[in-house]
Amino acid sequence: MIEALKSALQSKATDQISAALEAVEPGELAYTVSRLNDEERALLFQVLPPEKAAQLMEHLNEIQTVAIVEEMTPAAAAAVVEELPSEERADILKELDVLDCEAILAEMQPEEADDARLLMQFNEGTAGAVMHREVLSFDQNITAQQILYDLRSNYEKYSDFEVQYAYITGTKRKLIGVLPIRNLLFAPDHVTAREMMIPEPVTVLANTTLDELVDIFDKYNFLGLPVVDSHDRLLGVTDKASVSEGLEEQSAEDLLKVTGLMGKEEIRSMPLSERSMRRLSWLSINIVLNVISASVIAFHEETLQAVIALAVFLPIISDMSGCSGNQAVGVSLRELSLGLLKPTEFVRVFLKESSLGLINGICLGLLLGTLAAIWKGNLYLGLVVGAALMLNTIIAVCVGGLVPLILKWRNQDPALASGPILTTITDMCGFLIVLSLASLFISKLV
Amino acid sequence: MIEALKSALQSKATDQISAALEAVEPGELAYTVSRLNDEERALLFQVLPPEKAAQLMEHLNEIQTVAIVEEMTPAAAAAVVEELPSEERADILKELDVLDCEAILAEMQPEEADDARLLMQFNEGTAGAVMHREVLSFDQNITAQQILYDLRSNYEKYSDFEVQYAYITGTKRKLIGVLPIRNLLFAPDHVTAREMMIPEPVTVLANTTLDELVDIFDKYNFLGLPVVDSHDRLLGVTDKASVSEGLEEQSAEDLLKVTGLMGKEEIRSMPLSERSMRRLSWLSINIVLNVISASVIAFHEETLQAVIALAVFLPIISDMSGCSGNQAVGVSLRELSLGLLKPTEFVRVFLKESSLGLINGICLGLLLGTLAAIWKGNLYLGLVVGAALMLNTIIAVCVGGLVPLILKWRNQDPALASGPILTTITDMCGFLIVLSLASLFISKLV
Repeated sequence: MIEALKSALQSKATDQISAALEAVEPGELAYTVSRLNDEERALLFQVLPPEKAAQLMEHLNEIQTVAIVEEMTPAAAAAVVEELPSEERADILKELDVLDCEAILAEMQPEEADDARLLMQFNEGTAGAVMHREVLSFDQNITAQQILYDLRSNYEKYSDFEVQYAYITGTKRKLIGVLPIRNLLFAPDHVTAREMMIPEPVTVLANTTLDELVDIFDKYNFLGLPVVDSHDRLLGVTDKASVSEGLEEQSAEDLLKVTGLMGKEEIRSMPLSERSMRRLSWLSINIVLNVISASVIAFHEETLQAVIALAVFLPIISDMSGCSGNQAVGVSLRELSLGLLKPTEFVRVFLKESSLGLINGICLGLLLGTLAAIWKGNLYLGLVVGAALMLNTIIAVCVGGLVPLILKWRNQDPALASGPILTTITDMCGFLIVLSLASLFISKLV
Repeated sequence: MIEALKSALQSKATDQISAALEAVEPGELAYTVSRLNDEERALLFQVLPPEKAAQLMEHLNEIQTVAIVEEMTPAAAAAVVEELPSEERADILKELDVLDCEAILAEMQPEEADDARLLMQFNEGTAGAVMHREVLSFDQNITAQQILYDLRSNYEKYSDFEVQYAYITGTKRKLIGVLPIRNLLFAPDHVTAREMMIPEPVTVLANTTLDELVDIFDKYNFLGLPVVDSHDRLLGVTDKASVSEGLEEQSAEDLLKVTGLMGKEEIRSMPLSERSMRRLSWLSINIVLNVISASVIAFHEETLQAVIALAVFLPIISDMSGCSGNQAVGVSLRELSLGLLKPTEFVRVFLKESSLGLINGICLGLLLGTLAAIWKGNLYLGLVVGAALMLNTIIAVCVGGLVPLILKWRNQDPALASGPILTTITDMCGFLIVLSLASLFISKLV
């Protein structure tokens, strides 16, 4: 399939390219486009008419679309972006450089550009970021006949709209009711929107969080929920699927952050230099932290020199404490995102983790201590190593449990920063404990 | 709020308990229930009538609900579970012990139990696992009048149903059409379902993956999609929101696995022994792997004894390689889940990662090598440490990029196992490289 598209692109024949593209399964479109080289991809989007290009983009991932839009001229990009649904459009524009974004907005229809600007201002994870603007809205005094006439004469424009409900506005464009479109079917021609509508609709503010939206959808079982500003004016409508999608994106981003990928996600069709720089920005922080924690070892070189066997256990204690701590980080991240934990419940987390750390620390400490004692036939080596792992496991689970809370409480991103902070602290403590204990018992260890 | 509920529970007065519960915001219900102790929680669900209990459960997280259901008698659990929507009901029953589950199914209405058994057999991540059974379905020969009569007389039963569409079945209960309920409004009484329906509806099989469903919803913009068996018989209906929710659960589970939490998720209201055992099962594998990789150091004790400064760099190289490799794991996991990478594209990943590894390896190696050379005033120490980190970074990113693919290709879970496999390999290689290089240049290092 990819080869067919590639050779069609080489021929530069529009018909052939369209045909090759249509032969690709919808589920394979993102993959296929990711396997084109830069010139092929640019050519593909030059050849496709804006509407088709937008349809294709809806099958791609956001990061692919952003890269494609960045390479287009502002005019061409504006033509395609205008064809996207309002929510996707704002998502893409938000990810562009400010200058690119402004250039594209300048080329768009003023009305569409204003819509996009409005949607772009809302933060990720809020109702404003997961709403769409393709909404039917009518003044309260308009009649059933006028609404039906409007629907029929704007058939084209409304083709992408959810037309189950119309939203009815009163004075100062305040949202005052919701009108199920099927009610129109029974209504005499002259009845006004106000008379047909369901008054006092449930609304949410644009800064409502996704978790709150889930609860509201659970409570009311609505298809859509109108989003309003602080003056009760309709901004847009969000639905359950958009909210779930927003949550899915947050989880996926957290997963990437936990593995040490900051900022935007990476796909391997991005330029090498960009991929390298993004990863290095994270690694360079880590190497500094690593040097700091390893410097603890440098201050105890004499002890280590005397009991060289300890060098084997330093990386084990460092790694195992990291593992134990990361599990606690995972539980805290999950409890925070499920709303089962408030960021200030330090005492609860400390009590829950320290008791668990004691049990797991004893188990792991016994295991490693026994191994160490048998290996060198020295009970004291076993005691030192086992006690150090036990103590450091307790520290690691407490730190791992608490760091995400502290970060969240300070409005920092817990998924991104918890790991490095955790390992720096546990490494330092682990090295310090094992080497201090060893120097205490140095006469028994040599 | 929690205190009010707790004291109401102490009084054991049903009215007071209901009132205290209703005073809690829907978004705070999960949190509130998680802060009750075992007796309070058991009492709460004894006191609530089944319908109210089910409503409350819909606001809780699956893991909370499972714990509550496990503590109820089979009869009480059956009464509550019957009130849950079919999809949630199957999710909960699936998570129970087989015996508990069978005991509850035995207490349920036979029809409801069959429904639950049907839904429970489908794998996570497929259409079967995200569909609901609350679906209107009629035979093709039934008339508009009969359908309307059925809707009116079963008003109670259908109250939880999506009633936008009815699904029309032909001979051998095959799905042959979809009937928008609003079409009924204009239909003469005697018209049959077959005459009103839209024939040849788009359907999906129960084993269709969530990614494929996303593409189908993107393509057609439907509200719901009928799920059929291999004989075209209607099994249920799925919608966009359920698919997005399913994807969200997968991402959240992957996040937990990456942090080293296997199997079901953990919340801190679970018993300590259970939390401890779950985490230990993962840690005990890790400690064995750690001992294996650290044994490399044990075989080079002499080199280390001669150049004790190396002991400082062993944990740094181990940790930095782990960080670099984990980034590659994250990118592979993401590309796999976005469908941008096939599990057999080993060569592509190797080429993309090795080139990146070379660049990042040189940068990190130069940095750490320079530090090492300056610290001990020994250029060779810098060369050994820098070269080792460079080489091991290349190994780490290649291994990190490839391990998730290999696991996926062998039908293993890449999120869970990639981390430990990666760190074991990179630790062993890292220790081996730095200590071998050091023994080569031992005369220059001492």
